[in-house]
Amino acid sequence: MSSGRHLAKGSPTPDVPEDGILRLYSMRFCPFAQRVHLVLDAKQIPYHSIYINLSEKPEWLFEKNPQGKVPALELVREPGPPVLTESLLICEYLDEQYPLRPLYPRDPLKKVQEKLLIERFNAVLGAFFKASDGGEIEPFWNGLDVYERELSRRDTAFFGGEQTGILDYMIWPWCERLELLKLQRGEDYNFDETRFPQLSLWLERMKRDVAVMAFYMEAEVQAEFLRTRSAGKPNYNLLVKDA
Amino acid sequence: MSSGRHLAKGSPTPDVPEDGILRLYSMRFCPFAQRVHLVLDAKQIPYHSIYINLSEKPEWLFEKNPQGKVPALELVREPGPPVLTESLLICEYLDEQYPLRPLYPRDPLKKVQEKLLIERFNAVLGAFFKASDGGEIEPFWNGLDVYERELSRRDTAFFGGEQTGILDYMIWPWCERLELLKLQRGEDYNFDETRFPQLSLWLERMKRDVAVMAFYMEAEVQAEFLRTRSAGKPNYNLLVKDA
Repeated sequence: MSSGRHLAKGSPTPDVPEDGILRLYSMRFCPFAQRVHLVLDAKQIPYHSIYINLSEKPEWLFEKNPQGKVPALELVREPGPPVLTESLLICEYLDEQYPLRPLYPRDPLKKVQEKLLIERFNAVLGAFFKASDGGEIEPFWNGLDVYERELSRRDTAFFGGEQTGILDYMIWPWCERLELLKLQRGEDYNFDETRFPQLSLWLERMKRDVAVMAFYMEAEVQAEFLRTRSAGKPNYNLLVKDA
Repeated sequence: MSSGRHLAKGSPTPDVPEDGILRLYSMRFCPFAQRVHLVLDAKQIPYHSIYINLSEKPEWLFEKNPQGKVPALELVREPGPPVLTESLLICEYLDEQYPLRPLYPRDPLKKVQEKLLIERFNAVLGAFFKASDGGEIEPFWNGLDVYERELSRRDTAFFGGEQTGILDYMIWPWCERLELLKLQRGEDYNFDETRFPQLSLWLERMKRDVAVMAFYMEAEVQAEFLRTRSAGKPNYNLLVKDA
């Protein structure tokens, strides 16, 4: 489990200690799962990661979570135990249940405005996937314009202020993958620092954030995973030392 | 405005008193907008309704709300003033900002479980639209099975307990439209009370709820609107007395 090996069909139920610690069912290359890792790490909430081979899901995953979705968070201390899905809802739950180092603003108006910017990022991440898949790249830059303007308007180091906040972490997985896009697109990659001056500085600051560093992945590894997946043989265990 | 007339392209900025009361940009036949009306009415929050002709949106709508979306809630008392979109996020904001008659559970776990059931209803409402459009009806019933089981498990009058709660109101607009579906499908309509015993009782209870009654619409009127829309000439003002 801690080896990062992705468990597949036929694998036994994972051997996780019965220590009452949260269990996160995850996939190492999934940007939605990354959101939950970022929030858990930023808030320093202990958890066990259980990585899942999404192409051949283990049978026991459906017992935990009938929809078989990842990320999923098992609240082992609660009666049931309940298994939460949906990256954004898991992150909201964590921020409410573990009030130390709050990531969402307290004020209802500021909070809903942050959620609207997270919601609006769905179009941007959609455009990212298309660009990463060989489609047009400009719609992705157009989407990022909104966040450049917003960060410039806020005039802070992070979207969350002088510290990272929820918006920083919820959009980060696709921003980390700018390097992946560069690798995939080659000459065609046209990120423009003069168009994104605030985001450029923010990217560098984010790369030094402890939670970001804890789950950071080199673009070459991401690219290699996507290559194996496109070839129909996804290698989930690229990062596993003994693989 | 209070006439319920839907404002179209070329219409002047609506003549709403500058009284600091919330303004809801809405459309009378829109189930997503209905969610916001239900929450405002259930919590007895005063607001002005401004109905929009979505086929020919007034120019001033884009000044308020560049995406031109409906429902949109203008917080006239706040600097800006900000305009919120996304029915679920507006409802969450209202429940936090106006704590009287809370609709979401307080407990973070119960709250996220309610949000997961609301999120999961997206598939059900998608199935509703398909069934209403002449597609298969069974996927919609399959989706409702989850809510029948849940209500039976809770063994309460409403999803919210002895009083209505957020889940009741967020799924209601499509449940109110069961009558519409019956009208549209005729012989083919096969709602089965023995399959949905709890939901059948719940439907009757909901129809007596004050907030539900305030925005209730007869199926015949809904059907007539959809007919005019299919014919390419949506008549938004069917309910306007002086239309």
